[in-house]
Amino acid sequence: MPDHQRGSQISNRQHSLESQGQGFVAGVDIGGTSLRIALSDMTGKIVAEWSTSTADISDPHEIVRMIGSGVDTLLAKSGSSRAELRAIAAGAPGITDTDKGIVLATSYLMGWTDVPFRDLLEAEMGVPAFIDNDVNMAALGEHAAGIAQGVKNFVFLAIGTGVGAGIVLNGELFRGEGWIAGEVGYMLVPGASVAPVGDGQPGALEEIVGGEGIQAHWRSLWSENSATLPIDATATQIFDCALRHDPLARAVLGLASRTLAYAIYNISLMLNCPLFVLGGSVGLHPALGDATRAILLKQNERVQPQVVASSLGTKAQLTGAVCRALEVAKAPALIGKE
Amino acid sequence: MPDHQRGSQISNRQHSLESQGQGFVAGVDIGGTSLRIALSDMTGKIVAEWSTSTADISDPHEIVRMIGSGVDTLLAKSGSSRAELRAIAAGAPGITDTDKGIVLATSYLMGWTDVPFRDLLEAEMGVPAFIDNDVNMAALGEHAAGIAQGVKNFVFLAIGTGVGAGIVLNGELFRGEGWIAGEVGYMLVPGASVAPVGDGQPGALEEIVGGEGIQAHWRSLWSENSATLPIDATATQIFDCALRHDPLARAVLGLASRTLAYAIYNISLMLNCPLFVLGGSVGLHPALGDATRAILLKQNERVQPQVVASSLGTKAQLTGAVCRALEVAKAPALIGKE
Repeated sequence: MPDHQRGSQISNRQHSLESQGQGFVAGVDIGGTSLRIALSDMTGKIVAEWSTSTADISDPHEIVRMIGSGVDTLLAKSGSSRAELRAIAAGAPGITDTDKGIVLATSYLMGWTDVPFRDLLEAEMGVPAFIDNDVNMAALGEHAAGIAQGVKNFVFLAIGTGVGAGIVLNGELFRGEGWIAGEVGYMLVPGASVAPVGDGQPGALEEIVGGEGIQAHWRSLWSENSATLPIDATATQIFDCALRHDPLARAVLGLASRTLAYAIYNISLMLNCPLFVLGGSVGLHPALGDATRAILLKQNERVQPQVVASSLGTKAQLTGAVCRALEVAKAPALIGKE
Repeated sequence: MPDHQRGSQISNRQHSLESQGQGFVAGVDIGGTSLRIALSDMTGKIVAEWSTSTADISDPHEIVRMIGSGVDTLLAKSGSSRAELRAIAAGAPGITDTDKGIVLATSYLMGWTDVPFRDLLEAEMGVPAFIDNDVNMAALGEHAAGIAQGVKNFVFLAIGTGVGAGIVLNGELFRGEGWIAGEVGYMLVPGASVAPVGDGQPGALEEIVGGEGIQAHWRSLWSENSATLPIDATATQIFDCALRHDPLARAVLGLASRTLAYAIYNISLMLNCPLFVLGGSVGLHPALGDATRAILLKQNERVQPQVVASSLGTKAQLTGAVCRALEVAKAPALIGKE
């Protein structure tokens, strides 16, 4: 539906609520296996949160119904109802066309292709909606209310199972020609595999810096006699162990942080970007940040980007979604056109 | 001098000329050892060109005087005089603050630091001036009148002795927080040296893909019996020889093109950039473009940026400078504020 039509359909209720400064917005974080929702008042204050598992659920219509039910629960908890909801924004784990509100593709877990998720959300909720890639949502969260507040140029690096970047240039998210800017998980740096990458395969950088790559490196070094953690330790357990000076864990941390430092250095050269915010379960670990900073310090004295942990942590995406929903509530027809 | 003052000082003559659609602009390409000037009419048609050597001359005042004398020569050749010059724009081989018109730093050849070159040019020429980095000027040239005409997102890669990038995002040059976006000559890719880089040293990528790096690789493989070119062959001679299937030359081309392909791939991932334009004496060689494209084809079927040679060739910078001078002549106070 063209934006001017969407605008007119939702405008009456919006205007009467807005004139009173009343109402709520909802921010949604759609993960691979979980769904989180935050309800905020119009000042951006979170008044209630809700989450549920989406394991084995991938149908977008079902996800939208779950969001509707979650928002209703939160509104009821706040002594309110759908009539007071003014906008909703969601971060989805996939390539997203924010102009058209379409999730173009997600990973195998969800298996979405060309899902008009904004329209589905608007139909379910009866308010203007906005949808974006989840890493971009997290970058927006850090920009609006986190450690990158007011920073004109920065890169948010989400490091979990995979590695992705949300890029803010001149104060705005840069999404690229085909909505896939920030696909740094495939970056080729010294030590990374240069083997051709097939569809659905992890990228060369992810294979070293991502959670599964870190676990695989640990397993390759592991032996019963030398290891202080089991063979199936998680990336964060391994990094914890590295902080206790375990040699095997330090070797794993060493490779991951060196490789991450190379990637940050390359991005910094390209974009002249002074700040990198690390997020995601692996990226938030202090051992990784410390080791990465130490390597960058030595690489090139002229290129010294600041590398910090996300201050919003696991709430970066949800915060970004709430911020975007507030923007949508205030100017429903302007969003997504940046 | 603040822009509104600059604007008012030059406005009278500008307006009377502009109302008649008459006059000329000059584009200047300041190289490490040469100076080239093109005089254009107000439709962008080059009416005369001039060049001279600047070997052993690095004083910016002297360079500005040479530019003045060159422009006068061209104006006289066109049966005109300084009174009909309306604007001038120059590309300088260094980091340039386009807002303030200051060349912040150049390579050791020129040795400039914080040179207010725009003010010097305006004082000498008596017309509004604009100054930018030379690679950015070349990118602008390709965008305005070359192979990237109308392309919203592309990267111009200048490969000569060194390697640098001019980045156009959403139709505008992206210069970065400290005016040094596009410093890709230092990029760390597989096979590149990860040794720390000191001030003034060539970057890891330049050491392989730049002209001197290519010559050094040739020298390292050279022996009197096996080589069909002398030990001091240039990069373009070596690439010519590779086209004739010389094994040594092909090995040198192979490493350079593989490394360039990795760099292009990395930039493309980051910026979701569909077009790369190769320029500079080394970058323009067809053997490098062909070999690089062949490697990219195999790397990742989802990431397939187009790689083409600059259509303006050695005139890309001069063309960009003329385009910018035309913009300045039409809206002197607006330029450099993008």
